[in-house]
Amino acid sequence: MNPLEKLRHSAAHVLATAILEIWPEAQLAAGPPVEGGFYYDVELDHRISPEDFPLIEEKMRRIIAERQPFKRIEVSREEARELALKGRLGALSERATPSRYKLDILESIPEDEPITLYQNDHFIDLCAGPHVEDTGLIKGFKLTHVSSAYYKGDEKNPQLQRIYGTAFYSEKELEAYLKQLEAAKQRDHRKLGKELELFLIDEEVGPGLPLWLPKGAIIRAELQAFLTEELQRRGYQLVHTPHIGSLDLFRISGHYPYYRDSQFPPILEPAELKEFEQKQMSCAELANRLEKGEVDGYLLKPMNCPMHIRIFASKPRSYRDLPIRLAEFGTVYRFEKSGELSGLTRVRGFTQDDAHIFCMESQVEAELLSCLELVKVVVEKLGLTDAKARLGLRGEDKEKYVGSAESWQKAERDLRKAAEDSGINFVEEPGEAAFYGPKVDFLVKDAIGRLWQLGTVQLDYNLPLRFSLSYVGEDGDKKRPVIIHRAPFGSMERFLAILIEHFEGHFPLWLAPEQVRVIPLSDAFVPYGQRVTELLQQHKFRVTLDRKNETLGAKIRIAQLEKVPYMLIVGKKEEQMKRVSVRTARKGNLGEMELEAFLSLLLTEYKERRI
Amino acid sequence: MNPLEKLRHSAAHVLATAILEIWPEAQLAAGPPVEGGFYYDVELDHRISPEDFPLIEEKMRRIIAERQPFKRIEVSREEARELALKGRLGALSERATPSRYKLDILESIPEDEPITLYQNDHFIDLCAGPHVEDTGLIKGFKLTHVSSAYYKGDEKNPQLQRIYGTAFYSEKELEAYLKQLEAAKQRDHRKLGKELELFLIDEEVGPGLPLWLPKGAIIRAELQAFLTEELQRRGYQLVHTPHIGSLDLFRISGHYPYYRDSQFPPILEPAELKEFEQKQMSCAELANRLEKGEVDGYLLKPMNCPMHIRIFASKPRSYRDLPIRLAEFGTVYRFEKSGELSGLTRVRGFTQDDAHIFCMESQVEAELLSCLELVKVVVEKLGLTDAKARLGLRGEDKEKYVGSAESWQKAERDLRKAAEDSGINFVEEPGEAAFYGPKVDFLVKDAIGRLWQLGTVQLDYNLPLRFSLSYVGEDGDKKRPVIIHRAPFGSMERFLAILIEHFEGHFPLWLAPEQVRVIPLSDAFVPYGQRVTELLQQHKFRVTLDRKNETLGAKIRIAQLEKVPYMLIVGKKEEQMKRVSVRTARKGNLGEMELEAFLSLLLTEYKERRI
Repeated sequence: MNPLEKLRHSAAHVLATAILEIWPEAQLAAGPPVEGGFYYDVELDHRISPEDFPLIEEKMRRIIAERQPFKRIEVSREEARELALKGRLGALSERATPSRYKLDILESIPEDEPITLYQNDHFIDLCAGPHVEDTGLIKGFKLTHVSSAYYKGDEKNPQLQRIYGTAFYSEKELEAYLKQLEAAKQRDHRKLGKELELFLIDEEVGPGLPLWLPKGAIIRAELQAFLTEELQRRGYQLVHTPHIGSLDLFRISGHYPYYRDSQFPPILEPAELKEFEQKQMSCAELANRLEKGEVDGYLLKPMNCPMHIRIFASKPRSYRDLPIRLAEFGTVYRFEKSGELSGLTRVRGFTQDDAHIFCMESQVEAELLSCLELVKVVVEKLGLTDAKARLGLRGEDKEKYVGSAESWQKAERDLRKAAEDSGINFVEEPGEAAFYGPKVDFLVKDAIGRLWQLGTVQLDYNLPLRFSLSYVGEDGDKKRPVIIHRAPFGSMERFLAILIEHFEGHFPLWLAPEQVRVIPLSDAFVPYGQRVTELLQQHKFRVTLDRKNETLGAKIRIAQLEKVPYMLIVGKKEEQMKRVSVRTARKGNLGEMELEAFLSLLLTEYKERRI
Repeated sequence: MNPLEKLRHSAAHVLATAILEIWPEAQLAAGPPVEGGFYYDVELDHRISPEDFPLIEEKMRRIIAERQPFKRIEVSREEARELALKGRLGALSERATPSRYKLDILESIPEDEPITLYQNDHFIDLCAGPHVEDTGLIKGFKLTHVSSAYYKGDEKNPQLQRIYGTAFYSEKELEAYLKQLEAAKQRDHRKLGKELELFLIDEEVGPGLPLWLPKGAIIRAELQAFLTEELQRRGYQLVHTPHIGSLDLFRISGHYPYYRDSQFPPILEPAELKEFEQKQMSCAELANRLEKGEVDGYLLKPMNCPMHIRIFASKPRSYRDLPIRLAEFGTVYRFEKSGELSGLTRVRGFTQDDAHIFCMESQVEAELLSCLELVKVVVEKLGLTDAKARLGLRGEDKEKYVGSAESWQKAERDLRKAAEDSGINFVEEPGEAAFYGPKVDFLVKDAIGRLWQLGTVQLDYNLPLRFSLSYVGEDGDKKRPVIIHRAPFGSMERFLAILIEHFEGHFPLWLAPEQVRVIPLSDAFVPYGQRVTELLQQHKFRVTLDRKNETLGAKIRIAQLEKVPYMLIVGKKEEQMKRVSVRTARKGNLGEMELEAFLSLLLTEYKERRI
């Protein structure tokens, strides 16, 4: 535990002490430091809200001012149990009800570990420590928010209130942190996505099922057009496949029943389901039969690979045909727990810019290199220079992976070599492979510092085997192809989220939903504004003419808030000289320009996809 | 019954007579004339196959040569029943087993209708007639195929063998028909789609779930690009929405549970399903609770409308914003019975070129006209000149439709007026409306004469009410918008099917997956061929250079079979003169041409999307 974590751990005890002073009946669970601060989980009838924070913080300030020392007390397991039964752990005094969560935590401490308590003032907690010397060291702190959390993260356990805060060794550090937090909030894609009308998450449609609004769909179309050009240059072929597929297909691939819990349950044919209804079959029996493969059905596809594999297998293939690169903007569905859903970064339905390359072993290296290079092109084109690469290898728990040890060794060796040859900086991480093979992931941080996987390149010797894929080699013998799975964006939804935060909503010209807004100085210049608008529209730019009844200042302010990259202000002078006054949302006034010159500047900026 | 139908009806009796001569134990069901011929349904242990046709046809020829007269016999219901019980109906003589299907058919004849039998030779059938005078009038006939069919089309009934044939008053007519049938088979989209590698229907993925192969996906991309241009010109905005949505959403829209049987069953959240499994709930109980709305879940979307409606409802709308036109190439899923699936024309998952226009009542007429005009543009651009328009109105069974009588009257009146104003020829057909409103459908025949609905324009005053949609009117009051549903292609899959058959696989340049094949006369001219190929590719044409080790004749034949619109043959003369020898798949040799002249011809043909 680093010094800051230690301080925040102590701050969590201060929070607990304050809560108990106000609500002595509160049952405490755990209160650890976390990235950016700390929290404490409490069970309490009173629903704590930010309105309670001033009172709690006032008590915390007093406890800090008292510079209460933290005392470490080693006790026997039996002593700790007795105290918990008297309600004395996670409490200011003995109480009528036992400290039930502390009792449960006590049970889970391994036999050979010592049991320690920490005490400040009258508050005694079951705690492994460590803590700072006294509460006075907490110079800056703030409660930030409250959420609910299941005890031990398990939905079967009671739901607790989780009160979050942060703490520092100085007030200055706290202030700097809060400023940064506020800035991050300003560029949070959930906030900007709503303000800029890019996407919609609607509980009536379903949690984690984003809808792309018109402006977001324009960005998606531009990203897809950009990638499609890159794909065509590299010999990919686009396909479209259904969003459901027979359960048997996913049994062969290993997606079912293995990943059952992270998928939507199987879908039966209506007639078959009706038959089971008539036979009074129980849901449990049906689930059992489905799992055993005695009943067939369909699965919302969690991945596109089995579909592309079936296309490969739909006709005899020769070594002359390889590599075959099948690409699809394919929407897949996975079941994430509702507590884990987050804007566009963690969703239940998302579109992968997916592709599967079917190739000979001798082609693996060149194809891997080309895939890694493509991800680099994408990442660099969008200016995501802080992306980190990670080589995910098979972990300890071999049960989690399909395929032989040899095929894993080979795949890991090949992918490592390609990653080295490609010149990317990467770290190796066992346990981060896909279930069918190792992979290189590109990771990017979001506004609040969480790391997300974007682009990925995965090597797979296993699915070709499971699906008995083959091609006829140069010698006339049947050979097994290798599959490379890859997605440079990863998920279109998550990529948009990262882009929103990266650009703080100020999309570059080629991505901006509205590229130019033409603002006439008064009604008299609407006809000229109209001509300017039409000229740009003829060149396929997304332009609007602002005819609202507002002052120039207000119109500029609105365009700036809506993050339109270019504003063209047109008045008498501009009309006479066939010019426009150019403003950008980020750099302010750029001065006057010939209309034709502005158009050619725009054309170049768009064509080159400048950022 | 027209004369040809009468003849074919009699031919069905001849077929039955022949079958009974070979298999006297056969149980006959019904044997009507149908479009293009006739069939007879029989129950028989022996599995009839085309190998049996020569024997059956030999017997039929003899029966025809004998010019057996058809005798009409009116009997009482009781007499008919007695004969059926003795196995004498649909039989050559009395038998040990009753004529069970005839008995059942007898029961279904309304009380006030007369009961008639028809007899030729020893064959007596329960039959309303009419028939030709004698079997000798059947001058040309042929058995065509055999399939299986449930008695009365109900899956709960026994499966029968359905033997199809056709018959004419002259041999000449038969021959002409068979020739036409053969030609139709040649352009059947199922056959051509496989040969040209446009799409794949794979039982392992699931019946009725087409996969678009690379070449088909190119056609789809071109169709989408064409339509997207038309949409942008008309002020549509593209969106993307998920393929599943909460059951509640579809309860509000009326899609569930009303259309339960034609949809894939609801999908539950895994945790909820697990709870029901643990509680040992039966499937029937779960289905019941789902239907009652006591349990929530998700539905594979059968339509995109509820999603677009939620986008409309996601923010306050003013009359100034209207009309709002939301478009999506949205894939929807419906459950068609397996017996009704057919290539790309009847599938379980298909992509609609969908859009919903939210407008004021005062805008309905202009918007409807614009929609009808767009469908006309699409139909004409693709040369589908035989498309028929049909105004579908509410039918007798008012239970099948949502909404008040007034709103239906208004909608039907508005749509009829728009259809008249648009100048399309249409017929009115009660019972062909959507459940939420009347519609104009454009129908086209496929190769084998079946009529399919392609484009559609639907007017809807009901869903806005069900979803409580509103906008703020000019007077500041809340108003209810109107929704127009429309899809010019209808289904991308079905549209492709019709296009394949319409063009017999010879797609116009802009749609052709491979547009030009460059064929060097020998290896010596491969470098020039390469330069030609690259020049065309620079202009984004889909060109391949044929370097196969074949004769010129064979290469031309292959390109022709693969229906590549242009072949460029390059040899010494062509290279020296910077020319190309141009062949088209349909018109043969076009002679030599300057390479630049050919390029500009190609550019114009592509840009104008000529057909």
